[in-house]
Amino acid sequence: MTLRFTKGHGTENDFVLVPDLSAELELTPEQVALLANRHAGIGGDGVIRIVPTADAAEESVRALAGEAEWFMDYRNADGSRAQMCGNGTRVLATWLRREGLVGDEFSIATRAGAKRIRFEGHHVVTHMGTWRFVDEASAHADGFDALVHVEEAEAVTEPYSALSLDLGNPHTVVALPETVSLNGLRLRTPPVVNPTPPEGSNVEFVRVLGPGHISMRVHERGVGETRSCGTGVCAAAIGMAFWTGDADAAGQVTVEVPGGTLQVRLLPGREVELAGPAELVADGTTELV
Amino acid sequence: MTLRFTKGHGTENDFVLVPDLSAELELTPEQVALLANRHAGIGGDGVIRIVPTADAAEESVRALAGEAEWFMDYRNADGSRAQMCGNGTRVLATWLRREGLVGDEFSIATRAGAKRIRFEGHHVVTHMGTWRFVDEASAHADGFDALVHVEEAEAVTEPYSALSLDLGNPHTVVALPETVSLNGLRLRTPPVVNPTPPEGSNVEFVRVLGPGHISMRVHERGVGETRSCGTGVCAAAIGMAFWTGDADAAGQVTVEVPGGTLQVRLLPGREVELAGPAELVADGTTELV
Repeated sequence: MTLRFTKGHGTENDFVLVPDLSAELELTPEQVALLANRHAGIGGDGVIRIVPTADAAEESVRALAGEAEWFMDYRNADGSRAQMCGNGTRVLATWLRREGLVGDEFSIATRAGAKRIRFEGHHVVTHMGTWRFVDEASAHADGFDALVHVEEAEAVTEPYSALSLDLGNPHTVVALPETVSLNGLRLRTPPVVNPTPPEGSNVEFVRVLGPGHISMRVHERGVGETRSCGTGVCAAAIGMAFWTGDADAAGQVTVEVPGGTLQVRLLPGREVELAGPAELVADGTTELV
Repeated sequence: MTLRFTKGHGTENDFVLVPDLSAELELTPEQVALLANRHAGIGGDGVIRIVPTADAAEESVRALAGEAEWFMDYRNADGSRAQMCGNGTRVLATWLRREGLVGDEFSIATRAGAKRIRFEGHHVVTHMGTWRFVDEASAHADGFDALVHVEEAEAVTEPYSALSLDLGNPHTVVALPETVSLNGLRLRTPPVVNPTPPEGSNVEFVRVLGPGHISMRVHERGVGETRSCGTGVCAAAIGMAFWTGDADAAGQVTVEVPGGTLQVRLLPGREVELAGPAELVADGTTELV
C-alpha cells in the first residue's frame, strides 16, 4: 500500500507526518517503527498520523477535543502511543495551514487534550497547558527539591540541586553553576535523580546567558539526549523564572537548544506557551509493508 | 528549486539519491550536508547524485568509466566528495533498474573507476576491484602486522593482533578471540591502531560463527561505528579467509553486520565481489535552498 508522507521538524525535533484524512489507516507499532527508523525507513523522532478528530478511535480524545477538527495521533519512534509533543504540534500546524485545512488560530486534538495554536510571522505558538511544582513547599523553602548526578568530561563531580516540575510529564531542572561547561556534560548515560521519580523524569541542564535568555541540554526519559524537547524547554524557562524572580509573573524567556531557538511565554495562572519555527522538509510516498 | 529524491539503503547503510539525468544540478557542500542531515533534512549516510558519465565534471571519472553510462557522484554526509561506496553502488543500481535505465548487467562509473554490477534474484552484486596486503611479508610470517586497542564494556584489555589490508581504502582487521563479546566493544571512541596508518584506517572486529560465516562490527575512519561498510565487509572476509586457509583461493563468506547480511565472493587474482540486498524506501521532493 502506498502511503503519502511529509517530513518536518521544529528545532530539529523531527517527525514523519502521515495524512490519513479519511481515517483509513491502521498503523501497527512495527510499521510506525519502520517509518521512524533513520537507516531502514524515512526516519524521525516520532510519527504523526493526521486524522479527523471525529474519527479518532479513542473516546477520551474525542471527549477532550472541544472544537479541534484534527487529531495528532502521535507515535514514538518505537511504535508506542504518546500523549503529546509540543514541537510536533507546531510542525503539524504548519502542515495543516499549508494544506489550507485551518486558519491562523485553531486547536489541535491530542491525547492530553486540545492545544490552541496560532501563527506569529514565522513562528508557531502552542499553548502547552498548565504547569505545577511537584513539591511546592520545598521549592519555596529551599529553591530546590531534588539532586541530580551527571557524568562530566573532566571529572566525577558532586550532584547538582534541582527543581521538580510537572507539565503533564515529569521534569527535573538543574541550574548549572557558571563554572560548569554545558558542553562538557556526558548525557549518553542517563542523569541520576534523587529522590528517584517513580516513573522517571526528563532532565534539563540550564545555563543563564543573560536576562530572559538561557541555554539548555535535555535528556528525555527512555530516549536519551535530544536536540529539542517542547515541555523540557518550558520547564527550563519556568525553573529559571522561579530562581531569578517569580515563576507566577508573566514573562518571556528565550531558550537556546542544540537544535535551534525557542521562546517560552509564562502566562498568569501557571499557563505556558511555546513559540518557534517549524519546517516542512520533504514530501513523498513510501510503500507500507 | 524543487529537487526529486529517493531514499534507499543497503544493509542499513542509507543514502539520499538525487537524480540529475540532464546534469543541471550544482550541489554545494552545504546543500549536501543539509540533505544528509537526519534531523533538519532528509537524512542519510551519504548523498548520491545520479548523472550521465558523459556529463561528469571530473575528467578522471570520464577517463576511467569505460562503458559505464551513469556516474555515482558520491558525497559524504559532511558534503565532501568520496571515491566509492560499495553499498551505495547496490542502491544506485536498484534505482537505475527500477527506472529502466539499465539491464541486468552493467557498470557504474565512480571516482575509483567503473564498477561492474549484476543482479542475482534479490541480491545486487558489485565487483569491488582488487585487494592487497599492506605488508604481505609480515602477514605471511606472523599472520598479523598490527595491534589494535579498543575499549570494552568489562575492562581495559590487551591490544588485539590485526591484519592490514588495502581495498582502495585502508582497513585493519581484528580476529576476536572466542572469549570476547563483539557486543561488548565500545566503538564510540575510535580504536587505536599500531603502527598508526598515515591516513587512518577503518577497523573491523570479526568473530567466526562457522565455516564461511562471520559476524563483524566496523568503525569507519572519520565517521564512527556504522551499521554496514562495503569495503569493510570485504576486508573482514578476506582476513578470515587468510587466517583460516588461503585468501587467494576462490570462496564465499557470509558476513553478518548490524544492518543485515552480505556475501563476499573471493575471486582469483585477489578480486572481490560484494552481494546483498538493496531497498528503495521512499520517493519524494524537497526544496533546495
